[in-house]
Amino acid sequence: MTLLDQNHLDTALERGKAERLAFGGMAYARLTDEIRGVPKGSVVLPDGVVVPGYPSIARIQALDPGLGKQFDGPFWAEEKMDGFNIRIFAHEGEVHALSRGGFVCPFATDRMQDLLDPAIFEAHPNLILCAELVGPDNPYLEGHSPQVQEDVDLFIFDMMEQNREGFLSQEARMRYLREFNLPHAEIFGRFGPDDINKLGELILKLDEEGKEGLVLKPEDQSQRAKYVTGRSNTYDFSVTGEGLLDLPPEYFTNRLMRMGLFMAEHGQQQDHERLSELGHALMQGLFRAIEISKDHNRVGSPFRCRFNQRENAYRFIQHIEDTGGQRVKVYDKMPRQEGDYWVLEFERVHQRMTGFLNQALQGGRQFD
Amino acid sequence: MTLLDQNHLDTALERGKAERLAFGGMAYARLTDEIRGVPKGSVVLPDGVVVPGYPSIARIQALDPGLGKQFDGPFWAEEKMDGFNIRIFAHEGEVHALSRGGFVCPFATDRMQDLLDPAIFEAHPNLILCAELVGPDNPYLEGHSPQVQEDVDLFIFDMMEQNREGFLSQEARMRYLREFNLPHAEIFGRFGPDDINKLGELILKLDEEGKEGLVLKPEDQSQRAKYVTGRSNTYDFSVTGEGLLDLPPEYFTNRLMRMGLFMAEHGQQQDHERLSELGHALMQGLFRAIEISKDHNRVGSPFRCRFNQRENAYRFIQHIEDTGGQRVKVYDKMPRQEGDYWVLEFERVHQRMTGFLNQALQGGRQFD
Repeated sequence: MTLLDQNHLDTALERGKAERLAFGGMAYARLTDEIRGVPKGSVVLPDGVVVPGYPSIARIQALDPGLGKQFDGPFWAEEKMDGFNIRIFAHEGEVHALSRGGFVCPFATDRMQDLLDPAIFEAHPNLILCAELVGPDNPYLEGHSPQVQEDVDLFIFDMMEQNREGFLSQEARMRYLREFNLPHAEIFGRFGPDDINKLGELILKLDEEGKEGLVLKPEDQSQRAKYVTGRSNTYDFSVTGEGLLDLPPEYFTNRLMRMGLFMAEHGQQQDHERLSELGHALMQGLFRAIEISKDHNRVGSPFRCRFNQRENAYRFIQHIEDTGGQRVKVYDKMPRQEGDYWVLEFERVHQRMTGFLNQALQGGRQFD
Repeated sequence: MTLLDQNHLDTALERGKAERLAFGGMAYARLTDEIRGVPKGSVVLPDGVVVPGYPSIARIQALDPGLGKQFDGPFWAEEKMDGFNIRIFAHEGEVHALSRGGFVCPFATDRMQDLLDPAIFEAHPNLILCAELVGPDNPYLEGHSPQVQEDVDLFIFDMMEQNREGFLSQEARMRYLREFNLPHAEIFGRFGPDDINKLGELILKLDEEGKEGLVLKPEDQSQRAKYVTGRSNTYDFSVTGEGLLDLPPEYFTNRLMRMGLFMAEHGQQQDHERLSELGHALMQGLFRAIEISKDHNRVGSPFRCRFNQRENAYRFIQHIEDTGGQRVKVYDKMPRQEGDYWVLEFERVHQRMTGFLNQALQGGRQFD
């Protein structure tokens, strides 16, 4: 059984809804659009095997009455990690990790040997692990959950199977996590639609700890919901201000909305410390950008990540050059060896910020 | 001499670059696009007389080196008022006021008798006064300069002539202001490109006073520049948060940029009070919107303004209904008499905020 046969894929390729790619010796296709119910970001391996895309999770912005409205039975609350989403699978005995968009990520794939015992794939070769790669030494995101303060770490939060729609049940996933001692996002327990107070306390605790929020999953893994902390918004502002004009402006307005709704739900409208933090967070990246612009005439965010294999660093450079809407500037003499690893340091250049700040700081005139 | 002859206007009307309108007995056309160098917002009166549009003023975001870069000789610094821009002219002995877009504004036109001595038009019938109408009882804007704490007041800041490009010289304008004792935006004096410190002190004083900023005008009124205070951004956030999703998102990101540049130029990066104010300002309108949504299932901003003539209130209602991208809800039994005036109270409904908050507060799920 397969979700897409060769004809469907050929048609999709012709219509520009899929593209052929390769990683090392493995040819594959990624779907750039939904095809016959198989979501965007899904990958088709050479033998027709489909690794389904990871679906978006809807957001709720009020526990009360959101829980009652969204769930009619028990659900599990798990930590939503701040990192990047990968799907890990084995193909001909080799472990690969896909990005959300359906690219084999040379970085994540390279690092799997450090982060994951492949025994699970020997026992269950069709399994797909959905996980967050979290930490400061990641090549995509400015921020990360506070649990990881160096390099990156892996947190599994869902499991799927090749050629099948949907997620493994909560019970099956938890059994595999235990059995294979796999690293995973924290599972806080089983709650019900009436547990507004308990979940309110939990989210406030996560908020204090600087964590991103919760994903709520019904037993049968059907309709999920995410619910994030107020401070996750402040945190995002504090790490992305250098890109104020390069990110979509809705990045900022949507987070202001979420923050306001969170504070209002938890009675924090008079919480001066939180409001003050918000103002500081919004300006601090911008102040850094202004200083950087004065010193270098260029605004960018530095990234650093490390690889076991030098070749994967080169593949990664190629990958970001091929996919980068943002211009990427790899520093000189990269990758460089550091212990057993190859370290890659580069910068994502914020092109609009660079242009705008250069012009403004040099005294130029601007029409709004 | 005229800037546009009848043929040009007819062509513009055919091509949808101008539209015919009327106010009372006066037919006129407004330009919805630039035509032969005559700017958008210009108006053509029945006898072919052109009232030119008010041009945009470019912004500088750094006094140093902006002054040196933009000016090679002396310029005047004047207060930039926070209100709405009108052009006042006389036609067949009647005083009219145009909005920026080139509509005869029934509100501003109605109130001219309270705010302006028409003697200037008897002496100079071709004169056009460019002015800001400022105050809480205005029908367009949520905020206003602090000088006016009730109703509205008039502040002239430029003069033009019918059928002529460009502004009157500084000297001529100041002479007329004195001679006819006209209300005007404050003129702080004559400065030069080296007066970075003096203007720095002046803008910080305006910032403390809650004022919007400066317009800098060279003697010959050619290339001007505006430079706004940091706190004008905070103020804008504090009064527009109810419309967070209805305003263009760049409204917010552009103001964050300006605020950051202002604070950095004036060494305020560590000014915790200002940063704290920013966080409070960004959330307070949103908190109001959430409360309003809970109480009324609708988010809007209330407006109030008053008219001498009842007919003008009706004309104004018609005007906002014709032009309103935002839905306007006029309250019941309006206009109502209050002393010698007809008071109009209405609400500009924030439709996206209304929909989003209703859905979020009722526990709905949203995909980003």
